[in-house]
Amino acid sequence: MIDYSATYTDQYELTMGQVYFHKGQKNDTAIFDYFFRKLPFKGGYAIFTGLEDFLQALQKFRFNNEDIDFLRDEGMDPEYLEYLKDFRFSGRVYACREGDLIFPNRPIMSIEAPIIEAQILETIVLNILNYQTLIATKASRMRLAAGDRKLVDFGLRRAPGPGGYYASRAAAIGGFDATSNVRSGRDYNIPVSGTMAHSFVQSYDDEISSFRDFAEIRKNDCVLLVDTYDTLKSGVPNAIKVAKEMEEEGGRLKGIRLDSGDLAWLAKKSRKMLDDASLEYVKIAASNQLDEEVIKSLIVQQAPIDLFGVGTSLVTGRPDAALDGVYKLSYAGGEPRLKLSETPEKINLPGKKQVYRIVEENGFFYGADVVSLAEEKEGELDVMLHPSKSHMSLSIGRYKKEPLLHKVVDNGERISEPKSINEIAEYSRQRLNRLSQEYKRFENPHLYKVGLSKSLKQERDRLVNRYRQKA
Amino acid sequence: MIDYSATYTDQYELTMGQVYFHKGQKNDTAIFDYFFRKLPFKGGYAIFTGLEDFLQALQKFRFNNEDIDFLRDEGMDPEYLEYLKDFRFSGRVYACREGDLIFPNRPIMSIEAPIIEAQILETIVLNILNYQTLIATKASRMRLAAGDRKLVDFGLRRAPGPGGYYASRAAAIGGFDATSNVRSGRDYNIPVSGTMAHSFVQSYDDEISSFRDFAEIRKNDCVLLVDTYDTLKSGVPNAIKVAKEMEEEGGRLKGIRLDSGDLAWLAKKSRKMLDDASLEYVKIAASNQLDEEVIKSLIVQQAPIDLFGVGTSLVTGRPDAALDGVYKLSYAGGEPRLKLSETPEKINLPGKKQVYRIVEENGFFYGADVVSLAEEKEGELDVMLHPSKSHMSLSIGRYKKEPLLHKVVDNGERISEPKSINEIAEYSRQRLNRLSQEYKRFENPHLYKVGLSKSLKQERDRLVNRYRQKA
Repeated sequence: MIDYSATYTDQYELTMGQVYFHKGQKNDTAIFDYFFRKLPFKGGYAIFTGLEDFLQALQKFRFNNEDIDFLRDEGMDPEYLEYLKDFRFSGRVYACREGDLIFPNRPIMSIEAPIIEAQILETIVLNILNYQTLIATKASRMRLAAGDRKLVDFGLRRAPGPGGYYASRAAAIGGFDATSNVRSGRDYNIPVSGTMAHSFVQSYDDEISSFRDFAEIRKNDCVLLVDTYDTLKSGVPNAIKVAKEMEEEGGRLKGIRLDSGDLAWLAKKSRKMLDDASLEYVKIAASNQLDEEVIKSLIVQQAPIDLFGVGTSLVTGRPDAALDGVYKLSYAGGEPRLKLSETPEKINLPGKKQVYRIVEENGFFYGADVVSLAEEKEGELDVMLHPSKSHMSLSIGRYKKEPLLHKVVDNGERISEPKSINEIAEYSRQRLNRLSQEYKRFENPHLYKVGLSKSLKQERDRLVNRYRQKA
Repeated sequence: MIDYSATYTDQYELTMGQVYFHKGQKNDTAIFDYFFRKLPFKGGYAIFTGLEDFLQALQKFRFNNEDIDFLRDEGMDPEYLEYLKDFRFSGRVYACREGDLIFPNRPIMSIEAPIIEAQILETIVLNILNYQTLIATKASRMRLAAGDRKLVDFGLRRAPGPGGYYASRAAAIGGFDATSNVRSGRDYNIPVSGTMAHSFVQSYDDEISSFRDFAEIRKNDCVLLVDTYDTLKSGVPNAIKVAKEMEEEGGRLKGIRLDSGDLAWLAKKSRKMLDDASLEYVKIAASNQLDEEVIKSLIVQQAPIDLFGVGTSLVTGRPDAALDGVYKLSYAGGEPRLKLSETPEKINLPGKKQVYRIVEENGFFYGADVVSLAEEKEGELDVMLHPSKSHMSLSIGRYKKEPLLHKVVDNGERISEPKSINEIAEYSRQRLNRLSQEYKRFENPHLYKVGLSKSLKQERDRLVNRYRQKA
């Protein structure tokens, strides 16, 4: 549905590209790392999402004729335009597996390529990965809150325009069961789900006629919206009447939906009315301004809700509304590169790196990722150092370590197998299962540690000193 | 860039459509109103945005073969699928002019069409208009805060994926001067703007070489990022050196950009250093987590910043992150329709309506919109009634009244002239100029009134009584 051309980017990527092109640096190898600094939602983890879409966009990343014409009008010179016309990514991409748990201040994806190419990709990397990672992480929190109840994405109407296409995908990866968004369901093979709106009921002179017509046509896939006039006095009694009529025809009413009022109270009352009519099989769906906190509260109150429909807070990633993912240079001109900062945490990790996850014997994650230089061997990693506090370290020699960055693109060609949404969601679920509960709670979650190997720490210290002396 | 097909919608539009199709109601005329209930950002107005994109999407609203195949797999019946295959909107659209000021609980757009068509459009209406209206409104607030300083949209990297395409458009309508987003600039004719990133400076062994190369290639379109190492000790002095070198070649440095630290303090210090070097013409740009409050504060502090680059808070519409726009049935089956609610404000306005803006003799807006039945004549509107408080009314006989809803689509065909972004932005600016200051302030803005004509109020009261008696 989305036809990115290579101009879906910040102009400065192209002005910097122009300078790299003419000043002869364009073919120097550079490495850029994609990472973020702060976990969203004051949570304890995030879910890496958007990789497949990024890799697809990368394969199609071209400046078409309209782009070239526009850039000519913008004053770009003919030689550079010739270069852009033939632009193809020729480098390497190293990435975590999509759906994996990710944490701040360690590479999630690294791009190694001629500097002009790696630079020009910056905006599309950030645009695709930041949003989907935010939404999948939000969805994952809702999944934790909802336990084994069904979760359906109802967000398209409040989604940021075409961003809703990716929101539904990210929701599925974060653990949603279905989406109302037909197009995303179609393209990403996500189950789609939909019932009726108040307008449908209102278009009839009485509620029960609208229910009867809907049941007749939709047959066993029939969920009735019961709050248009009065949930307990009109909606539920009419739904029960129609359910009984369906039974006479050998059918079954699938469910009712509550979309206003006190959902806990209405669900309990409705459940009792349905059960008293021997309609134990009729499910209760609820929607209306839900988020993970409301879902949690409804479950604590033992509201008999079988399905939650979640919209706005899911697709906007409220309250954060953005992941602060960045794309930083760590290698250029044959040397590791640094950006100094007054805040020690903001000094980036120089050079080409690998990330290892520390795994306990029982298969659970220990609660720490260690960043090393790419050439370090796993077996050599016996200690992990705090990135800025020099007195803090951790012995990790006895643990298993799992490398997290895998080469997925080489010489510009994808070498990893494309993954379906189902596979990614299942992988994500498995990874989350291996993280202990303390990292997943909403209130002050335990801090997952990210540390540096001795060699990487030494390398960074060396560069910090060199840069400080120069300044 | 966005190729909507008609399945970019909530599935329930299509299940309701299926029932309308088979139960013979499909050709009954219905009217749905698009409106919202709460002004975003605790502000005093919103800017209607997205109409042109909606009208374009409407012209292309088709179920293609893939859509039909998918819906067949979803169990939709062959007869209905035949109908969808040939789906064309055949109705009418009445809308405010894009860029106009809009207020809660009055129609912004009304769709009058066979009920099946009007229903199926719901999600695309909401998806396109809610997001763009939110972003244009946010942009407009930043414009108010920034006065005549330049505002540039830097948001693409934190934008919700492809939603960034529309965010840049909405920002321009809300009063931004330029965008970093090349593709939106290209397609919507918005000036594009871009400088350099820290990575560019870091890729060199020293800052001044990076500045010199950039200046050599970019010539007079050169803005140097001065905070990579140390703004005042390194960045600004190096920029001054390069500016002087440029002068010797007959060139001029356009500006410097600050992207971290205390922007007010650094701008003042930088300005002084530039002025002391007789570089009064060099502009200062600033970015880094700006929003309307920070911009306002920088201006109060008299920070000599000429250009603000705004990203995340613009394209996400923080903190609201969504406009609560809805699409409600007001007419069907030959009769006006109502949705009852415990909250009087939530009871919708039945029937086909017009909205008038009350205008004072000096051309300023009085501060009230009145909703009437469509057939009422402007001259008959002598009083405006509060929608729910029966003792509150306002004499409006002596004021001019401007009708706000215009027919833009008839028999499925667009009849209004397409408008350029420039025209829409200019129109919006003029409209905002006619709204007095009290509605535009950020703190507790004055309440713009929305009232009902006597006939509409009577009609609604009549229906409320009828529906309550039935219930």
